[in-house]
Amino acid sequence: MNLDALADSVLARCDVLAGCSEEPGRLTRRFLTPPFRQVHEHVSRWMAAAGLHVRLDAAGNLRGRAPGREPDAPLFVVGSHLDTVPDAGRYDGVLGVLLGVAAAEALSGRRFPRALEVIAFSEEEGARFGAPYLGSLAACGRLGADLLARRDAGGVTVAEAIRAYGLDVADLPAAAYTPGAVAGYLEAHIEQGPVLDSLGLPLGVVPAILGQTRAWVRFAGHAGHAGAQPMHLRRDALAAAAALVTAVEHRARTTPGLRATVGSLTVWPGATNVVPGQARVSLDVRHADDAVRARAVADLLAFARSAASERGLGVEVEPGLEQPAVACDPRLTARLAAALEDRGHRPEPVPSGAGHDAVVMAGLCPVAMLFLRSPGGVSHHPDESVRREDVRAALDVMICFLQDELAR
Amino acid sequence: MNLDALADSVLARCDVLAGCSEEPGRLTRRFLTPPFRQVHEHVSRWMAAAGLHVRLDAAGNLRGRAPGREPDAPLFVVGSHLDTVPDAGRYDGVLGVLLGVAAAEALSGRRFPRALEVIAFSEEEGARFGAPYLGSLAACGRLGADLLARRDAGGVTVAEAIRAYGLDVADLPAAAYTPGAVAGYLEAHIEQGPVLDSLGLPLGVVPAILGQTRAWVRFAGHAGHAGAQPMHLRRDALAAAAALVTAVEHRARTTPGLRATVGSLTVWPGATNVVPGQARVSLDVRHADDAVRARAVADLLAFARSAASERGLGVEVEPGLEQPAVACDPRLTARLAAALEDRGHRPEPVPSGAGHDAVVMAGLCPVAMLFLRSPGGVSHHPDESVRREDVRAALDVMICFLQDELAR
Repeated sequence: MNLDALADSVLARCDVLAGCSEEPGRLTRRFLTPPFRQVHEHVSRWMAAAGLHVRLDAAGNLRGRAPGREPDAPLFVVGSHLDTVPDAGRYDGVLGVLLGVAAAEALSGRRFPRALEVIAFSEEEGARFGAPYLGSLAACGRLGADLLARRDAGGVTVAEAIRAYGLDVADLPAAAYTPGAVAGYLEAHIEQGPVLDSLGLPLGVVPAILGQTRAWVRFAGHAGHAGAQPMHLRRDALAAAAALVTAVEHRARTTPGLRATVGSLTVWPGATNVVPGQARVSLDVRHADDAVRARAVADLLAFARSAASERGLGVEVEPGLEQPAVACDPRLTARLAAALEDRGHRPEPVPSGAGHDAVVMAGLCPVAMLFLRSPGGVSHHPDESVRREDVRAALDVMICFLQDELAR
Repeated sequence: MNLDALADSVLARCDVLAGCSEEPGRLTRRFLTPPFRQVHEHVSRWMAAAGLHVRLDAAGNLRGRAPGREPDAPLFVVGSHLDTVPDAGRYDGVLGVLLGVAAAEALSGRRFPRALEVIAFSEEEGARFGAPYLGSLAACGRLGADLLARRDAGGVTVAEAIRAYGLDVADLPAAAYTPGAVAGYLEAHIEQGPVLDSLGLPLGVVPAILGQTRAWVRFAGHAGHAGAQPMHLRRDALAAAAALVTAVEHRARTTPGLRATVGSLTVWPGATNVVPGQARVSLDVRHADDAVRARAVADLLAFARSAASERGLGVEVEPGLEQPAVACDPRLTARLAAALEDRGHRPEPVPSGAGHDAVVMAGLCPVAMLFLRSPGGVSHHPDESVRREDVRAALDVMICFLQDELAR
């Protein structure tokens, strides 16, 4: 088994998939948009070349299976996702899928007691429908009617997007793993943060994934003429929205471990000489301790209400995702740490600030996560990168880990 | 002369023009967009019915003239504009045009020494090209190559918009009044602010129009993953933009007479789980004293630079309009005040917080402005309104004023 050649092939395949985008000149690939067809063709071919039996499920998850010797033994799953945020890097999600395919290829000469499934989830970022994890939720039998009815910016529902891709929502039940039939899930992913890079380590083991709250806050005031409206009579929705953005930044800077972000802010009517009548901001708050997060969210929403009331505005909160912090499985995580040590690496624990498909899979089976160093901590950005030697190290550890787990 | 019937007809005509919009269900009518054709048809018909000789100039200004007895006497001009902001009310601009047409109709039985021209400017708001006063600039011979080359959001230039409307930019010189050939300009306009309403007065006389500065400020940071990026390593462009919005509000609230507004704020990439890499805000600052305004703008731009530097961001300022405060002509304004008193009204001086075509016309000839009460101070909003009795009063005063000025 030539690890160097496999690592090179993983990186070359990441480059190929980076060319499959909704937009020329930058990488944007949201759930089941046209470039997904090319991506599915490429990954299907690579899965088949690794000896896997390939199928596309009704949620657009691409799955490649190596059968085990014991048909009734729970299978082991390894994977990540194929969708991206707008103007993305080329490794977030994709790298974990292709590491899984490469590990399967490395192990393809042997028949283990358990089956191995490599899964390429169709949706994790939430970039198209404002709701993340559509792929893994489907794989866990949790893609319900509420999510299927969500609409993208163009008014298309999740169900319609699935149908437009040539899939049938009636087949969704067959996309779901049978509870108890999955022995474990391993996800390799770039760290997307600066911790491993700052420590000079190629790999880390994820003990937990931060909990997160997402919400939208809408302020409703009254549009008016920017020149003729004296300040004390204004009901400026953007002024309150901006105060909230500042409060979010301040709260997160002064609360250890808290990460809070306003990523989207929209203003109506948006003309330079009109006092804004309405504004809408997104809120994204994360922490390892659910109580700390809940307190921060409550305080920030209270701040939003007071910023609105000071300015005579209405305020409405539209709750979004509420994701508790998720601990990875202690046994599986210890086994992953042992594999790191076995291959000569210090098993540094690095909590994940980002959500991952492992969050959803943790509701179904034991999960473990392997982080690869992100140079500069850069992610969700075209400059996102990964080192060849780190990819080789991850592959080495994954093969070591998987051959033990498949034999259990 | 039946003032009641004329006032009713002015209001009915405002309703007719409110139906000419780019968008169903709300009034948006930017420079030379398709609904302008209907508007020009209606207003041409009404001008002709008032006995005016109608022509459309090369900038899309519609002009109706009642000739005077003395061909060499400078003419008197009365008017306002026909374009609107997005989601506008139905009186801003339009009312001044239709009051001019109605006054001309009331005076049509008499031949005065001077000619009277009613002008309906094609562009005042700056909503399509981000530059206001295109119509009055053309009428003053100041619509230069720089403005003709400006592009709208769809990439269309002003010159192309003029050609697409069937007009010829080569005819622009003929759209310009000859300097010295205009005796004066009167513009009637809704106040767009709450002063007259709070005083219980139907009409006011404008002594001056506030100076204004418009600019764009761009912040450039670095996009990153909202969960994985610790706060101290972020370069969040929206955080600085929001701090600037808050500073703008604070400065204006604490500086007497200052009106400062951020009407537009745009964020890239704009996904809820991505730290914003870029943000762009508009700045609109107005004051009656140019020095106070200049100091406020300088301080706010210095604040923007420090908010950027605190966060490791780049900042770029794109200067826009610089409009000094404009005093209305003392003699003409005193004559207008005398007309108010003659018709039984207190001639309350109300400075204009908004720019008007009178600002540009003041470079050509003496100008005066008459304000009509804006109930609730509401403008640039569908709820914008005007009282029938105030329209009647304005008409009464304008007729009184014009018959004196046309006879001078």
